Amino acid sequence: MSLKQALQWRYATKKMNGQAVPQEKVDQIVEAALLAPSSSGLQPYKLIVVSNAELKEKLKAVASNQSQITDASHVLIFAAWDNYTEERINNVFSRMNRERGVPDSATDAYRTFLLSAYVPRTAQENFEHAARQAYISFGIALAEAAVLEVDATPMEGFDAAALDELLSLREKGLRSVVIMPLGYRDTENDWLYPLKKVRTPMEEFLIEEK
Amino acid sequence: MSLKQALQWRYATKKMNGQAVPQEKVDQIVEAALLAPSSSGLQPYKLIVVSNAELKEKLKAVASNQSQITDASHVLIFAAWDNYTEERINNVFSRMNRERGVPDSATDAYRTFLLSAYVPRTAQENFEHAARQAYISFGIALAEAAVLEVDATPMEGFDAAALDELLSLREKGLRSVVIMPLGYRDTENDWLYPLKKVRTPMEEFLIEEK
Repeated sequence: MSLKQALQWRYATKKMNGQAVPQEKVDQIVEAALLAPSSSGLQPYKLIVVSNAELKEKLKAVASNQSQITDASHVLIFAAWDNYTEERINNVFSRMNRERGVPDSATDAYRTFLLSAYVPRTAQENFEHAARQAYISFGIALAEAAVLEVDATPMEGFDAAALDELLSLREKGLRSVVIMPLGYRDTENDWLYPLKKVRTPMEEFLIEEK
Repeated sequence: MSLKQALQWRYATKKMNGQAVPQEKVDQIVEAALLAPSSSGLQPYKLIVVSNAELKEKLKAVASNQSQITDASHVLIFAAWDNYTEERINNVFSRMNRERGVPDSATDAYRTFLLSAYVPRTAQENFEHAARQAYISFGIALAEAAVLEVDATPMEGFDAAALDELLSLREKGLRSVVIMPLGYRDTENDWLYPLKKVRTPMEEFLIEEK
């Protein structure tokens, strides 16, 4: 399926049928999330994939009891760095230079600029910036899921603090930002399935400066 | 090109060759941005596409003089709502219900819940939330560009206030969040082109809870 067809095909599935997504497809969706670009290549987020049934029950309890969380076979949780620190930024540059066979001196000016821009900011400001990057990855993972004809439901309706606690994210320097159950639509029981996909009319969405 | 291949192929092009992207491809990328999902379907952002040469020069001046802005044929600017207001939320629900042939009463409970959640928040909090939604659209547009073998450079390095002024965005209730020049890589003169794409190792990126 082309990406355009996939974007037309997908919708925020409200009822899933319990069928499991093959691990191979989950791997491809995770790979797409990993390949997403991010500001200065820092990738200030991680991806938690929950397939454990007991844990999915607990996740559902902190996510307004949305049934997709347990009817999905896998729940993806995008968690952003709680802050940009000198150590985290330096680690990314070290690894990048090592893999590229480039001396650290080649990126010192840019790295120093980033440190001076990010480190003095509040943790909250840095987290907000990191969260935005996670949303790029989220969008790309969602596109890949659709291309593979896997249903996914973008979800922000959860208690982030409780979810962070459940997955011990704060100890890992992370904060949950958005989640994506993966599964298959239950077309007979999903109220949203028969409804038309509605978007802002193009003439309102797009401003052209020719 | 498959989405996976496209994600491997793309990179944050640092030097473009000036060749124009066909309007048909630009249209497809804009369409992908429009089809992206957003929280409660509000689509709290617009897309400005600048192809005017004089305006691109002015954009470049407020974006650290990055050459891609004028070497690109089209510059996409994602601009988020500066706030969620009752009027904006109500408008989305009215249109959605009208297009679906559903009475407004069917969505009143959810709409009222959203109003009670969003309207009391500060404009800054709402803008941050809207900006995240724009990043989903940004990620999906970037994926579509790559599938079409159009180069794109994610850019946050610009003076948002100056850009908002240049495009009169604040008067439209919008604030610029991220931009994407579209064009074609100049492989001979782009320092980034020959360098390896580096990502966080999968074992660090992914946490599995099986």
